[in-house]
Amino acid sequence: VYKVKRFPGSMRKTIWNVGKDDPRRVVHSLKVGLALTLVSLLYLMEPLFKGIGENAMWAVMTVVVVMEFTAGGTLCKGLNRGLGTLLAGSLAFFIRYLADVPGQIFHAIFIGAAVFILGAAATYVRFIPYIKKNYDYGVMIFLLTFNLIIVSSYRVDNVWSIGKDRIYTICIGVGLCLVMSLFVFPNWSGEELHKSTISKLEGLAKSIEVSVMEYFYDSEKQANDDSSEDLIYKCYEAVLDSKSKDETLAIQANWEPRYSRCCHRIPWQQYAKVGAALRHFSYTVVALHGCLQSEIQTPRSIRDLYKDSCIRLAQEVSKVLRAMANSIRKKHKFSLQILSNNLNEALQDLDGVLKSQPQLLLGSNNGRSRTPRTPKTPRTPNSYKLEEESRILLSRVKSDCCSPVGSKSKEHSREQTKEGQRHKVLRPQLSKIIITSLEFSEALPFAAFTSLLVEMVAKLDHVMDEVEELGRMSHFKEFRDDDDNN
Amino acid sequence: VYKVKRFPGSMRKTIWNVGKDDPRRVVHSLKVGLALTLVSLLYLMEPLFKGIGENAMWAVMTVVVVMEFTAGGTLCKGLNRGLGTLLAGSLAFFIRYLADVPGQIFHAIFIGAAVFILGAAATYVRFIPYIKKNYDYGVMIFLLTFNLIIVSSYRVDNVWSIGKDRIYTICIGVGLCLVMSLFVFPNWSGEELHKSTISKLEGLAKSIEVSVMEYFYDSEKQANDDSSEDLIYKCYEAVLDSKSKDETLAIQANWEPRYSRCCHRIPWQQYAKVGAALRHFSYTVVALHGCLQSEIQTPRSIRDLYKDSCIRLAQEVSKVLRAMANSIRKKHKFSLQILSNNLNEALQDLDGVLKSQPQLLLGSNNGRSRTPRTPKTPRTPNSYKLEEESRILLSRVKSDCCSPVGSKSKEHSREQTKEGQRHKVLRPQLSKIIITSLEFSEALPFAAFTSLLVEMVAKLDHVMDEVEELGRMSHFKEFRDDDDNN
Repeated sequence: VYKVKRFPGSMRKTIWNVGKDDPRRVVHSLKVGLALTLVSLLYLMEPLFKGIGENAMWAVMTVVVVMEFTAGGTLCKGLNRGLGTLLAGSLAFFIRYLADVPGQIFHAIFIGAAVFILGAAATYVRFIPYIKKNYDYGVMIFLLTFNLIIVSSYRVDNVWSIGKDRIYTICIGVGLCLVMSLFVFPNWSGEELHKSTISKLEGLAKSIEVSVMEYFYDSEKQANDDSSEDLIYKCYEAVLDSKSKDETLAIQANWEPRYSRCCHRIPWQQYAKVGAALRHFSYTVVALHGCLQSEIQTPRSIRDLYKDSCIRLAQEVSKVLRAMANSIRKKHKFSLQILSNNLNEALQDLDGVLKSQPQLLLGSNNGRSRTPRTPKTPRTPNSYKLEEESRILLSRVKSDCCSPVGSKSKEHSREQTKEGQRHKVLRPQLSKIIITSLEFSEALPFAAFTSLLVEMVAKLDHVMDEVEELGRMSHFKEFRDDDDNN
Repeated sequence: VYKVKRFPGSMRKTIWNVGKDDPRRVVHSLKVGLALTLVSLLYLMEPLFKGIGENAMWAVMTVVVVMEFTAGGTLCKGLNRGLGTLLAGSLAFFIRYLADVPGQIFHAIFIGAAVFILGAAATYVRFIPYIKKNYDYGVMIFLLTFNLIIVSSYRVDNVWSIGKDRIYTICIGVGLCLVMSLFVFPNWSGEELHKSTISKLEGLAKSIEVSVMEYFYDSEKQANDDSSEDLIYKCYEAVLDSKSKDETLAIQANWEPRYSRCCHRIPWQQYAKVGAALRHFSYTVVALHGCLQSEIQTPRSIRDLYKDSCIRLAQEVSKVLRAMANSIRKKHKFSLQILSNNLNEALQDLDGVLKSQPQLLLGSNNGRSRTPRTPKTPRTPNSYKLEEESRILLSRVKSDCCSPVGSKSKEHSREQTKEGQRHKVLRPQLSKIIITSLEFSEALPFAAFTSLLVEMVAKLDHVMDEVEELGRMSHFKEFRDDDDNN
């Protein structure tokens, strides 16, 4: 304890936060301490020691190596260790039986060859993806035990007792670990996966809502810029980075005893699939967020025209995400019909607004008429006028552009004389300046924003499929209307 | 070898492919086999055995546990193991010295308490992110050795020799592993990170090019649909999933002896940062790819108007990515000026085309005039005509919509009577039908496509910054023109 006090402040804070962020870590640490103390008693207490002897050390080692944070992790490692030891023991005895010929040198060569072949084969097998995922540790322990027994057999005659003792003590160690992690404040991988899936769904829902609100009310954005930016970023970042964590949890959860009503198996792999669908969904959210940070912004006046429909669509998407989160949490099916209806109504609404305000996008009407558009089609007077206007604007833009390009080559020559810091400060702004100075059709980013919203609905479908499949596989309850209101 | 033949065909193929995909795996397997055989000689050969004795087993164990695929991985584990053992040994002797009091029971209690406190503390420390990343294995070995020595000290008097032997044998094991992985066909983590960064840059460049080409020439898309889709997907998927692999490689590479001209340290962490910037860039690529798969497609006639500029911009972006890949490969700086000029010209070109063909987007002109747009502004006759047109279209769309919605509620009732398979086949199409039937302004997805291209340029800036920083940190050669032509 006094050790902590000696650390400098930041270090002390880090250590404190590790426990504060997740108090289960403190509990786990105490559990490991307790397990180690208990297993040490095998050695320290006279009557126990008489039964087991020196080999009690193997039990201590097993506890140190096998105890994992979650029950699934411990089970996976423990069973792998047990199985690996058992298999290696059997094989080693079999090979020893084969090699039971007189002649020390022949014996040594035989052992060497067996060690080489098994070592290479086991290492190679560990590269197979399926083995790597589920049995990596087991294969390592197999190799370890096999070598231990087969090499010992060269000098020791009672190898049988070495093997037996090793298996006994490993069983004691694994058993103790399992008791500690399954029955004393257990942390279930499955539960963690379940919760993280729910929180990811809810995080994305929040992220979309905040993004859209910020897009249309950017006055508030100026005020609490950092906090809400951070919120959006954090929510989708958690989803984007979840791949390896999800997969590990799903594998560990597969080792855990399944607890569920009616003894149905909980399809943990399906949770990982939901996670994958969510990740793909979240790429669209990232792109949507990108619209907020874009250098060119559509004027408020244009945005305001479509504000309500966009916000409505975003809210419907969030609602669907939340409904799925609730569905997983309460393990009942979600009401597909109502949600889809609302979503489609919102889509129609947005479409209607876009069509009734054709200032933004006239292309749709051109497309609808189905006549192939060539530059020769007679133009309306207005279109001519616009084109003239834009030509004038274009030339203005081009002259605007010259200055950044000019300043750039100047800057480059400066860079060559005085490299480093200064260069770094100036350069990043460049293409931003140019993008802004071009004043790309200001409606463009808004069109992208709207299109991404629509795209999002399409991708949401895939997520809904996976969640539905999850519901089917884990036999969720039928949807009841009153559940939805809670 | 005969074992392989017994496996069923698919299994055999999997095993074969593991080696075919990366022949270094076969080499690594043989290396491990060889190392194990060598270390077994310590036990098998009479003169060596006399020096070391039973404890040779620890060396065998060390080899099994420490040998990793890359040199960095082996160094990291080996040094962690060595350091952990050394530290644990010192601490155990210190504590043993403290506890050197008469009275067996007091001694046992003291040992138990030490085991508990150290066990809990070490487990807790492993949760600290910095420790977890770099020293996780070391802390585990520390705990293992500490327990081993302190518990043994209860019954064995010459603990000193236990500790000494363990340290010796571990040093032999680690030394052998290091020799094998540093000098015999070494696989460097750093090199792998270097190569994977280059291939990621090139993959993204290809992915963008193919996406854009497919978007504008979708006739060819029909022909070799799967292959090019797969290509795009594979290229960016590799970038998206690279997070954990990159970080592991960067950490391992940090342990490797740095090799570089002029003894500069190679900033591996900066490679990981480039990877992070690339990941963020690739989210835009995913969104761009989403435009290809979108249910609503802009008519060819409209797309063709902007084809050349878009393709040019995409090619410039790809060119920048390839230039960065080349820059990293050949370790020279890249020619910022030429690339930026080309990129900006392409941007201006696209902007020019968009402005000269205002059929797609009129909003820009509204925005430019700076007069606040209200519905009361006098409209041009053309605009009135269009609005009328769109109203008619809207009503048509609405009547179109009724049928899918109708069929949906029908479908829902069917679902309730006959759940499962059938339901799964029908449902996923639904919102697609609705999105398509709404015929959202067909220009919308094209606008999104263009906007994403522009967005991409903005994000490319960030990648360029990181690559430039990488060049600065690892003292790349100055750019020479002839390098660029190779």
